[in-house]
Amino acid sequence: MATSSAIAPLAANTKIGYSLDRKFYCDDGVFAADMERIVGRKWIVAGHVDRVRNKGDYFLYKIGNESIIIVRSDESTINAFYNVCRHRGSLICTEPAGRVARLTCGYHAWTYGLDGALIAARLMPADFSKQDNALQRCHIRVFYGFIFVNLSDQQPVDFDAAFGDLAPYLDFHGFADAKIAFSRSYPTAANWKLVVENFVECYHCAPAHPEFCSMHPPEALVAFGAGPSSGPADAVEKYLPALRAWEQRAAALGRPIGTVDDGPESSHLRLLLQRTIREGYESETQDGRPASCLMGKRLGFDQGRMYLSFSPFTQLVATNDFAVLFVFTPRGTMQTDVDLYWLVDAKAAGVDVEKMIWGWDRTTKQDQVITENNQAGIRSSHYRPGRYSDHEQRVVTFQQWYLAQFGFALA
Amino acid sequence: MATSSAIAPLAANTKIGYSLDRKFYCDDGVFAADMERIVGRKWIVAGHVDRVRNKGDYFLYKIGNESIIIVRSDESTINAFYNVCRHRGSLICTEPAGRVARLTCGYHAWTYGLDGALIAARLMPADFSKQDNALQRCHIRVFYGFIFVNLSDQQPVDFDAAFGDLAPYLDFHGFADAKIAFSRSYPTAANWKLVVENFVECYHCAPAHPEFCSMHPPEALVAFGAGPSSGPADAVEKYLPALRAWEQRAAALGRPIGTVDDGPESSHLRLLLQRTIREGYESETQDGRPASCLMGKRLGFDQGRMYLSFSPFTQLVATNDFAVLFVFTPRGTMQTDVDLYWLVDAKAAGVDVEKMIWGWDRTTKQDQVITENNQAGIRSSHYRPGRYSDHEQRVVTFQQWYLAQFGFALA
Amino acid sequence: MATSSAIAPLAANTKIGYSLDRKFYCDDGVFAADMERIVGRKWIVAGHVDRVRNKGDYFLYKIGNESIIIVRSDESTINAFYNVCRHRGSLICTEPAGRVARLTCGYHAWTYGLDGALIAARLMPADFSKQDNALQRCHIRVFYGFIFVNLSDQQPVDFDAAFGDLAPYLDFHGFADAKIAFSRSYPTAANWKLVVENFVECYHCAPAHPEFCSMHPPEALVAFGAGPSSGPADAVEKYLPALRAWEQRAAALGRPIGTVDDGPESSHLRLLLQRTIREGYESETQDGRPASCLMGKRLGFDQGRMYLSFSPFTQLVATNDFAVLFVFTPRGTMQTDVDLYWLVDAKAAGVDVEKMIWGWDRTTKQDQVITENNQAGIRSSHYRPGRYSDHEQRVVTFQQWYLAQFGFALA
Repeated sequence: MATSSAIAPLAANTKIGYSLDRKFYCDDGVFAADMERIVGRKWIVAGHVDRVRNKGDYFLYKIGNESIIIVRSDESTINAFYNVCRHRGSLICTEPAGRVARLTCGYHAWTYGLDGALIAARLMPADFSKQDNALQRCHIRVFYGFIFVNLSDQQPVDFDAAFGDLAPYLDFHGFADAKIAFSRSYPTAANWKLVVENFVECYHCAPAHPEFCSMHPPEALVAFGAGPSSGPADAVEKYLPALRAWEQRAAALGRPIGTVDDGPESSHLRLLLQRTIREGYESETQDGRPASCLMGKRLGFDQGRMYLSFSPFTQLVATNDFAVLFVFTPRGTMQTDVDLYWLVDAKAAGVDVEKMIWGWDRTTKQDQVITENNQAGIRSSHYRPGRYSDHEQRVVTFQQWYLAQFGFALA
Repeated sequence: MATSSAIAPLAANTKIGYSLDRKFYCDDGVFAADMERIVGRKWIVAGHVDRVRNKGDYFLYKIGNESIIIVRSDESTINAFYNVCRHRGSLICTEPAGRVARLTCGYHAWTYGLDGALIAARLMPADFSKQDNALQRCHIRVFYGFIFVNLSDQQPVDFDAAFGDLAPYLDFHGFADAKIAFSRSYPTAANWKLVVENFVECYHCAPAHPEFCSMHPPEALVAFGAGPSSGPADAVEKYLPALRAWEQRAAALGRPIGTVDDGPESSHLRLLLQRTIREGYESETQDGRPASCLMGKRLGFDQGRMYLSFSPFTQLVATNDFAVLFVFTPRGTMQTDVDLYWLVDAKAAGVDVEKMIWGWDRTTKQDQVITENNQAGIRSSHYRPGRYSDHEQRVVTFQQWYLAQFGFALA
Repeated sequence: MATSSAIAPLAANTKIGYSLDRKFYCDDGVFAADMERIVGRKWIVAGHVDRVRNKGDYFLYKIGNESIIIVRSDESTINAFYNVCRHRGSLICTEPAGRVARLTCGYHAWTYGLDGALIAARLMPADFSKQDNALQRCHIRVFYGFIFVNLSDQQPVDFDAAFGDLAPYLDFHGFADAKIAFSRSYPTAANWKLVVENFVECYHCAPAHPEFCSMHPPEALVAFGAGPSSGPADAVEKYLPALRAWEQRAAALGRPIGTVDDGPESSHLRLLLQRTIREGYESETQDGRPASCLMGKRLGFDQGRMYLSFSPFTQLVATNDFAVLFVFTPRGTMQTDVDLYWLVDAKAAGVDVEKMIWGWDRTTKQDQVITENNQAGIRSSHYRPGRYSDHEQRVVTFQQWYLAQFGFALA
C-alpha cells in the first residue's frame, strides 16, 4: 500500500528509546500518510456542545484541507457536514461560527436543512434528485458534552467500545452541561507529532514551565508527569504513598478512582491519570484558590486533578473548579492548530477568567515557542535521533502507537 | 504529448452537465498544461490603447511567469516585448507603467529602441551582433482600441479570421478612441477556470449580486443571463418578444443588431449578446441615469446593453454611456488577476466615476469573494463534481471548449 | 553521482561567454547540488572575531537550513557547533547573538559547555554516554580576525594551503584586532550565483552605482573593475602606468604589493587586487576625507584600496581607514543573505559612521534591487543565456570555477 511504503523504510530505521527520523517531522509524503491512516480514522474532539447550545448554532472545525460544519439541528441532535456545496463545491459557511435557520450556500443559494437535506435548488433539470444531493456527513458523536468527529469514509472504530469506560469520570466532572468560559488559539509551526510529544512528557516542565511547576508537587511531576509509571521507578515509589492517601480522601468526596493506560496496540492511546496538586492548593491557579465554583458532582475540594487524553489529538486537564480542553489539529506538514477551551460548571457565575487562564495560557505560549524551536532544529541536516530520558516513557509509547497504525513496530 | 497525457485521465472522468474534477482547479500539472495549450496560444486582451496614447508610453502586462512590455513606438505602432534583457536576463522595465524615450535596462544599460532594436551595448566583443539581440517580440494586434497579445512561439491563429466579424459592433461603440475613466484590480485566489465559470453564468446573480440585479429585467437574467439560449427554454420564450421589440428600436438609433455564439469547436469561444436593461433605465447605474455622455455612434439612449466575450480571458460589457473591460489573467494554479477598465467616449468630460463604477465595482468584489470560497471548498477531499442547473449552460459550453483544446470531448 | 547528474545536462548546454541556463538560477535540484558540492565544502567567512570578544559571546550563522553557533570558549578558542540539541533536536540558541556561561537547551535543559561537551542531562538511562552526546562540531578557523567555517562532513581542504599566502596583506590591514563599527543586512531574493556574478563585474557600475563611481578613477573601473585583466586590453594598458606609479608610493608607506588571481581550477577562486581610488581622495567616502583613523600598519594615506575575494561567498574591500566585509550566504534557491560589516582599526574612536557607510550602504541597496530584477527576468520562459561584455571576464571565470566543482568545463 502506498501509505505504508512511504513509512516502511523510515520505520525500519527507528530505534526504541530514540527520537524519530527527520522525515517523520518534515516530509510531505509522511504527512499525507499520517492524514490518511491516522487523522482520517480516529475519533477526534472538534469542540464542546456549549458552542452549539441553540438550534442553528454552528461552528467550523478545520482539519487538514477539510472544513467541517458542526451544527445543532434540534435539541438532541448535532450534525457534522463537510462544508462543500453539492452544486459546485463552494464553501457554504464562511464565518468561523454563527447561528442560521438553514445552510444556504452564498454562491447559488442552494439551501440545505440543518439535517443536511437539500431543500432548495432553483432551475435544476427535471431528473435532478434532491435526495441524492444532501450534504456529505462526517461521523459525529457527542459524549458527555464533547463533540467527537471521525473523518473515515468507512465504518469507524466503534465509539462505545473505544470510550464507553470513561463515562463515570466524565459524568463526575459535569462535562455534559459545562460552559466554555474562555478559549484561545495557539497555532504552532510544527508537525503534529512534535506537538503531541511535547504534551505527553513533563521532562521539559522544570526548565520551561515555571507557572505550571508552581502548581504541582515536584515529586508528582517526576513520577507521573507523563502518565502512570512515566517517570523513573524510584520516583514513582516515592510518590505512591501520597497518591494512595489522596485517592482515599478524594473517593470520600465523590471522585471515581481509577486509571486508564492504553498501550501501543490500542485504537486511541488513551490515558487517564488522577493525582494531587500542590499541597495546600485547591485549584491550578497562581495562589491555589479557585477561579470558579466546584465542577460537577463534587462534594468538596479534594486537591486533586485529572489528566485525560482521549487520543493524541485531544487532551483534557481538570482541576476542581475548571477544566482545559486541548485540541491539536494537523493543518500542514509543519503546521498544527492548538486550541484551548476552558470549561466551568453549568451553574458557574462570576468566573475569574484571568485567574483561571493564568497557568495554561502561559504554559501553552511556552509550548508554542519550544515546539517551534524543536521543529526548526530538526530541519537541520545535522539533526540526529537522540536518546530519551527515563522521564519520556510516554513519548516512546506514542511512537510505538504511531508506527503501529502503519503496521510497524519499533525495533 | 506530455500536456495531453496530464489531462487525458481527468477528461475521461468528466461528465457533461457536471462540474469538473478537483484536479482541474488545484493541480500544478494541469495549470502548466493550461498555460502551454491555451493561455500560450490564444489572443488575449492586455489592455486598451488609451494606456499608451503617446510615443514611449508603456505598461507591463503580467501573465503566468511572463512580463510583457506594451509600448508605443510611433503614432501607428504599438509593440509587445518580453521584459527580459538579452544580456543577462534582467527585467528592463520595473514600474507598472510610464513613458520612456528608449528601453534601457537598469542593470548594464543595454538600450533598446521603442521598436525593440538593440541600440547600445558597451564594450561588447567584436563579433557581437546587435541585430541578433533585439528584444523578443510577442504577437500583438490592436483592434478597435483593444490591445490583443498572443504568446505563441509559432504562427498564431489568424486574427482577422477569428475576430474580423466583430468590427461593426466595436466601431459603433467607438472603442477605438475611447478613454479609460477608471481602472481597478481584484486579484483572486482561485484557478482561472473558476473565474471564467463564475462570469459566464447568471445563476448566482440573484443570491450574490443585488446591485447588478437591480439594473436588469429579472426575466432577461433568467433567459439570457449567460448568453443566448443560456437559460431555460420557457424563460427564453417569455423574454423574446421584449427583446425583438427592443432590437427594432435600437436599430433605429444606429445599433448594429446581431449575435455571435461560438461553440466548443471555435478558437476563442466568443459570445456577443445584446439585450435590454431595466425598464426606464438609460444606463447600468444605481438610478439608471447616465454617468457619462453617449458612447460612439449612438443617436440616442436605447436602453440596451452589449455583452461581448472576446475569449474566456477577455470580457466586455457596454451600456450606452460606458463600457467595462474585464481582463482575467492566470498567474498561478490558484491565482488569477482580475483587472477592470471602465471606458468612456473619446469626447467624454465630467464623468461621474462613483456613479459609473457603482455596479461593477461592487459586483466584482462579490465575485472575488464567491470565487475564492468556491476554490476553498473544492480543495476538500470531499468535493464531488456537482450537477449544473438549466441556467449554467454556458459553463458546460466553456468546459467543452476547454477540453477540446486538448483534443478531448465531454462524455 | 546524483549531484553531478543533475548538473550534467545543463553543463553540456553552457557556452563560454554566455550567461547560464535558467535552471542554474531557479531550480531546486540545482540548488540542492550547489549546497552539497560547493556551499557544504568551502571555507566561508561567517563573521569577525569582534562579535565574540569575551568568553561566552556567541552569534548564530544561518546558512541553508543550518544554524551554526559561533562561540568563544576561552581567550584563544572560538568554536562552531550545529545549533541542534543532541536530545530531541531543538535549537539551543534562539537569539541571533548573546553571551552565555553554558549552552543550555531551553527545552529540556540539556547543558553543554562552551567546548560543546554535554555537562548535564537529567534522568537519563544508566547506559547513556555523555561523551557520545557532545554538540556536533563544524570546522572552524580564525585567520587574522576572520572566522571561517567549513560545513564538510569530511576533512576539508587544508586551510593554510588555501589561504596562507594572504597573511602579509591581512596583517598589514590590522584585521586581526579590528573592530566592527557598523553592520547591516540586505537579504536578496535571488539565487546566490546572481549575487556573486553581480559583485564580480563592474560593467554595471556606471549605470547603477553613481556613489561608487564617484569615488574611483573611471579608467580603473573599466580596466580593473572586476579584477586584474578583467577589462578590455586597451583599457588595462591605459591604466597600468598610473597603477605602477601608485604601487611604488604605496610600498613606501608600508603596503605589501602583490596580486592573487586564482583560476577556475582553484579551490576558492580567490582574487586580490590593489589599486588607486579617485585622485585626491584619501578614503572611499563622499568627499574623499577619512571616516576613521588609519587602519593597521599603515604609515600614511596612500590613496589606494584593496579588493580581496576569499571565495565567491566572502568579499572584502579595504580603503585606508575602514574595510567592508561582504558575507553572501545561500538560504534558498532564490534567497541569499547579504550581510555587511564595516571594520575599523583596533584603536579607532569617534568613527563617523554615516560618512563611512555612505558608499557601500547605498551601493548594496542598489545591488539588492538590480539582482532581484535580474532573478525576476530570468524566471521568464523567454530568458535566453546572453553574451557577456569584455568587462565581465570575471563572471566567466566564476562560471568555469562553478562548473569545475561538479567536474565539468565550459564548452
